[in-house]
Amino acid sequence: MKAHILIIGDEILSGRINDTNGPWLGKWLFSQGIIVDGISIISDQLDIIKKNILKQIDCNDLLLITGGLGPTLDDLTKPALAEAFNLEMIESDESQNLVKKHYERFGREWTKDTNSYHLLPEKVSPLFNPLGLAPGLKYLHNEKIILCAPGVPHELYAMANEVFYPILKDLKNYPHKSMQQISIRTFGIPEERIFFELEPNLWETLSQFGKVSSLPQTMGVDVVITTDQVSAQDNIKKIIDESKLKPYVWQWGNLSLPELVLKKAQEKNITFSFAESCTGGLVSSLITDIPGSSSHFLGSVVSYANELKENILDVKSETLKTFGAVSVQTAQEMAQGALNNTKSNIAISFTGIAGPGGGSEEKPVGTVAIGLATSNKSLAEVFQYKGDREKLKRRFCERGLMTLLKAIEEF
Amino acid sequence: MKAHILIIGDEILSGRINDTNGPWLGKWLFSQGIIVDGISIISDQLDIIKKNILKQIDCNDLLLITGGLGPTLDDLTKPALAEAFNLEMIESDESQNLVKKHYERFGREWTKDTNSYHLLPEKVSPLFNPLGLAPGLKYLHNEKIILCAPGVPHELYAMANEVFYPILKDLKNYPHKSMQQISIRTFGIPEERIFFELEPNLWETLSQFGKVSSLPQTMGVDVVITTDQVSAQDNIKKIIDESKLKPYVWQWGNLSLPELVLKKAQEKNITFSFAESCTGGLVSSLITDIPGSSSHFLGSVVSYANELKENILDVKSETLKTFGAVSVQTAQEMAQGALNNTKSNIAISFTGIAGPGGGSEEKPVGTVAIGLATSNKSLAEVFQYKGDREKLKRRFCERGLMTLLKAIEEF
Repeated sequence: MKAHILIIGDEILSGRINDTNGPWLGKWLFSQGIIVDGISIISDQLDIIKKNILKQIDCNDLLLITGGLGPTLDDLTKPALAEAFNLEMIESDESQNLVKKHYERFGREWTKDTNSYHLLPEKVSPLFNPLGLAPGLKYLHNEKIILCAPGVPHELYAMANEVFYPILKDLKNYPHKSMQQISIRTFGIPEERIFFELEPNLWETLSQFGKVSSLPQTMGVDVVITTDQVSAQDNIKKIIDESKLKPYVWQWGNLSLPELVLKKAQEKNITFSFAESCTGGLVSSLITDIPGSSSHFLGSVVSYANELKENILDVKSETLKTFGAVSVQTAQEMAQGALNNTKSNIAISFTGIAGPGGGSEEKPVGTVAIGLATSNKSLAEVFQYKGDREKLKRRFCERGLMTLLKAIEEF
Repeated sequence: MKAHILIIGDEILSGRINDTNGPWLGKWLFSQGIIVDGISIISDQLDIIKKNILKQIDCNDLLLITGGLGPTLDDLTKPALAEAFNLEMIESDESQNLVKKHYERFGREWTKDTNSYHLLPEKVSPLFNPLGLAPGLKYLHNEKIILCAPGVPHELYAMANEVFYPILKDLKNYPHKSMQQISIRTFGIPEERIFFELEPNLWETLSQFGKVSSLPQTMGVDVVITTDQVSAQDNIKKIIDESKLKPYVWQWGNLSLPELVLKKAQEKNITFSFAESCTGGLVSSLITDIPGSSSHFLGSVVSYANELKENILDVKSETLKTFGAVSVQTAQEMAQGALNNTKSNIAISFTGIAGPGGGSEEKPVGTVAIGLATSNKSLAEVFQYKGDREKLKRRFCERGLMTLLKAIEEF
């Protein structure tokens, strides 16, 4: 079963907003063993949408379309379907009933004056929208199927899982076999060193299990093997355990670094906190994105101004004066201050220069001091990274989370 | 001049990573008046890349390709170009010289054993990579041009601005006129109310200036007019000033809400700080993403655990016991605590339930209390929103930043 994803919206083409629906749908289809032939992002112009629908349904079994289902004049998915397949627009009782129910959930009334949600191309079926107002669409075209969902991400996700999935599952060419991705996730070693110096035959060796990809991340490289072999994971682990890559592997699996940190903290029942300067709240936000993080993350002090480092984190003004805000000494005192004030088991501190201003020859943009404090340990280390402000914030966070992960494992 | 953007990478198709290159290039081309016909994300398989190159260069003047230029075996852009246009792979002295320079910048040596960066399809020119190791590519094909850049975002951005732009500018069909987007940015009113209740003729009225789009955002709707009329902005402003939409407009222009907050704070020289519970550091991180934010943002306390609300923010344990952590009373004391401890002019606090757990009938998931404290004012308000955890964190932040924006304006 081969699928194409069509994302409609000028706002994405002109870069006003980032599309997240394409990648989400790609992953969703992939996990079901459905091959995704490509994702196309196209302008919301009638002839372009029509042309792409016809082109893609011609060479795929399934076409998933998002966007263009709303109430405004640039919402053109329905007219495009009508033109593509010569269908007349008609009033659909089924759609009217659905839409009325959608509106009732929000305590609102729908009439034909509200919008044209009751108009559909003939032979197109309206689909229940679990979270929004506009119905989805289904159209069968010779043995092939077109499914349309709104472009609002949470509406799309719900519709895919609750409405599209039961429809796909019943198709006779549904694959019913699942692909898996095995991830060898490394930290602190560049792509080229892995494949050209450390293990020149690794790529070929891994290729026997399926398709190999090398994906550079913020701070490391994920080597990913896509396979339908059930026992691949064990065999690949054996190969890596005997390879020179082993010391660089920080995780097998798909947890993010913050998720892994939280999981380990929960397993060992260790509480933690942060003192953030240059990361400006980001590391706390990454941790608190995870449901249930309140169990072991106690809180942080974002001490952007030096006064806060002194007043809330008890950093000595002497330390700031002698060594500067970006120094192992300040980082150590910040971590100690966070430990004392939050009464956590481990505290990690970040003080550095995210740029673009503020750098010096001795401490250029990209310098960060990361501190660690526990009841019987206190240390700090200085690192140097490259990148713009946002990238540097993220690199500092990942470096600090890696320090935290190690501290939790050794606690 | 019509362009297509081709993004190569299985890791995007399968949803492992989100593509940001497509939208960035879309915006970059759009601002130069180049029409982007579409963005295609495709698998890194030789025949698929080749097929898409041929298809897209056939109906466009410019084809921008990102990805597939790295050193590993799944980097196939060069072989795909060679196959598409029947070009032989040859050793390029020009490429060798470039690559050696690229490596020297990182203090590394390049030889032919390092990788195959010296091999190029004949007639394809290597391009300088301002930030990375792999060269870009240029190929001219009957009056049409193909430009290739690495998929690493910061390398792509630098190459586009420093290398691609001078090449495009000299093409004889380069547009030399710039399009602008005028944004009417509203807060707190849904799309349908704007166009069907408040101002049913607005869409048509605005269409005289160019293409109108309605873009729902996290907390409001941006109405965007794409135009090449120089005086459009003034005329559109007059129309909106006399419309019922006026009170909902919070900005003309393209600053993000955190950027506008910081700009206003700088203009009026007002310092601010946060006490974050349910937002978990996100609002601080959004502010500190902006270069120069340290001038007026002093810091925050991320008081996830109740003990931190008491110990660092001086919230009374009586208040927490009587009214609960999510209450106007706690929000008020948190804001007051942040104000006192950071000595800022304005402090904003957030305490709520981001879910998925922790909700109750009285205070369901999505409830947030936002507090405000200045030297002579202290207030708090409760709001209710819908969404998943990440969406709710973001909605809470935007609501609080809007409160902060108003407080700065009235200070």
